[in-house]
Amino acid sequence: MRKTDLDTPSLIIDSGTLRHNIEWMQKVADRFGVRLRPHVKTHKSPHIARRQMEAGACGITVAKLDEAEVMTDGGLEDILIANQIIGSAKIARALELARRVRLAVLVDSQAGVEMLERAASVTGQILDVLIEVDTGKGRCGLVNDEEIVALAGRVADASHLRLRGVETHEGHVPRGAGGPGELQERAVAAGARIVEVAEILRGQGHPVEEVSVGSTPAAPYTASVEGITEMRPGTYVFNDVNQMALGQAHPEECALSVLATVISRPAPDRAVLDAGSKSLFAEAARSGFALEGYGGFGYIREASGARIVSLSEEHAVVNLAAGVDFPDIGDKVTIIPNHVCPAVNLHDELHIVDGEDVIETWPIAARGAIR
Amino acid sequence: MRKTDLDTPSLIIDSGTLRHNIEWMQKVADRFGVRLRPHVKTHKSPHIARRQMEAGACGITVAKLDEAEVMTDGGLEDILIANQIIGSAKIARALELARRVRLAVLVDSQAGVEMLERAASVTGQILDVLIEVDTGKGRCGLVNDEEIVALAGRVADASHLRLRGVETHEGHVPRGAGGPGELQERAVAAGARIVEVAEILRGQGHPVEEVSVGSTPAAPYTASVEGITEMRPGTYVFNDVNQMALGQAHPEECALSVLATVISRPAPDRAVLDAGSKSLFAEAARSGFALEGYGGFGYIREASGARIVSLSEEHAVVNLAAGVDFPDIGDKVTIIPNHVCPAVNLHDELHIVDGEDVIETWPIAARGAIR
Repeated sequence: MRKTDLDTPSLIIDSGTLRHNIEWMQKVADRFGVRLRPHVKTHKSPHIARRQMEAGACGITVAKLDEAEVMTDGGLEDILIANQIIGSAKIARALELARRVRLAVLVDSQAGVEMLERAASVTGQILDVLIEVDTGKGRCGLVNDEEIVALAGRVADASHLRLRGVETHEGHVPRGAGGPGELQERAVAAGARIVEVAEILRGQGHPVEEVSVGSTPAAPYTASVEGITEMRPGTYVFNDVNQMALGQAHPEECALSVLATVISRPAPDRAVLDAGSKSLFAEAARSGFALEGYGGFGYIREASGARIVSLSEEHAVVNLAAGVDFPDIGDKVTIIPNHVCPAVNLHDELHIVDGEDVIETWPIAARGAIR
Repeated sequence: MRKTDLDTPSLIIDSGTLRHNIEWMQKVADRFGVRLRPHVKTHKSPHIARRQMEAGACGITVAKLDEAEVMTDGGLEDILIANQIIGSAKIARALELARRVRLAVLVDSQAGVEMLERAASVTGQILDVLIEVDTGKGRCGLVNDEEIVALAGRVADASHLRLRGVETHEGHVPRGAGGPGELQERAVAAGARIVEVAEILRGQGHPVEEVSVGSTPAAPYTASVEGITEMRPGTYVFNDVNQMALGQAHPEECALSVLATVISRPAPDRAVLDAGSKSLFAEAARSGFALEGYGGFGYIREASGARIVSLSEEHAVVNLAAGVDFPDIGDKVTIIPNHVCPAVNLHDELHIVDGEDVIETWPIAARGAIR
């Protein structure tokens, strides 16, 4: 089947670009002697996770137990759930999973540690945990040395928990960065901070084997910080407009596109596509220092001068500047989403293409895996 | 099962509020003698569509063929696909469906009309179409009388198409409206315009049996315009923060909530929930004249003074003003989404609750029905 024979909207993945991206990030990790544990929330597919493992990854990262279970069923054996596991139902599932794979979860509160310890003491298991440190994102994780040391002490006292290390998600690094230099500086600062935390804990007698960072934009820089042992980027496997807006990817390094059809040309300066926020997701492009030309709600490969100015659920409205050549009603176009991870979550299948041909179709097995 | 026993994030629907909302909009339609053809994209469930029919709806509206097929399988018999159907694969599906149910689709281009006519002439069917008119939204639909008349002429010439009427989606009505008076004025203007178009076409000898409008915020006003025959609101069935921000719904008139768990309290002014943009959708609240108090990315029923200031895929970050009483780690909260329709699309099941008890669980059968 040719890719243009697919009904729209559909997700297509360029096979060669996927391979290139997987190999490129593995090279970054190898160069700095850091283990790569890719976040699979981007692709949600055990097929692609196994390719990342074959290229040299040490294991995978997920955000939710649902994802961990799908990946375990798909043959993955070493999984970090980069999230707090709270509540008895979820903790029971985590302990069950820990019998099947090498598992670790995050903690950032005394309450969370106590819930895990209580449940693990009942089943008689020992669960690996990493302490989440907030290096600037302002989401989960602890900031103050004293609180981090106190939580490590609580984990050390818990006879059914083992402190594997410390973790941060430095997702704040690109936010408002004025250029690649500033992005690098912030990434290195986040990396240096998590290494400092590891040293503080070691100074208190805690074994800290893993010092883990994660985020595609920061990855090439945090990995260079002495003392980092593991990195968890996700987006790099496909790339997206946000990566383009940071000057970190060109359109030809973006592996995924949403195939869409032109369904209306109601005015000379307007075209409408059959892919809206239920296919592309509704996020505006994050600000990036290379944003110019990438505004709007996605990048149309066939008409880079056309701009998707609004999305409704099932429509993309495209503004056509005077003189822009744009396909006719019935023609198909390919769109790079602004943020690829939540866009993948809206679809059931990935169509792998080589040139114009669809060579494989894989289910997005962890679509909707939000618990 | 009690609703707080559900794992999180999950969707819960208050049974009494759902019934109230269904009956309320039917009363609006009945008062003005307008047929109600609810848009089912909001709930995506044949169970709820059948309840709307039992309350008096004349049929249903969908946005995509996938949805039409799910609803046909669920026993619905009169379906308007409020969208252009473009491309041979989709047109073949539409013609197949037209053998099973009373079906109509929209047209807004000569190219679209020709594609439909060609395919219907091969199968020997006669397909109902409505001409889409743009009354201000700036998406699909024609604006100029001459173009509308020309398209109606093309439909009249097509021996396998039947012009059922004219249609508009007046989704622009609340955009930037300064108060209920302005909203009403714009709604009435949109309604008056589509009635005018119907009269122009009748003046040219075209039979126009249906004059159809659709949009929850405009519904109570457009329905009052003499000459409107059909209305297609969707959101009213659940309501959401956007409706609250327009002063059209109170929290107790919002039937749907996302149940979430507090997973982190990393700072005195911050809590984090386990429901992010993959559970709530990422749209900021649309501006509304009653927006104050409803900013952020959802409304937390248990703590209206707390504000969801950011969403990542699996986390909601809640800002706690000094003195706000907020639940502890492990406690559950219920969130009204900003825009309920795309939020429902992220989940597989609706849990119907009566007070604290889950009384039924229905699949979201048309989740991901985007083609």
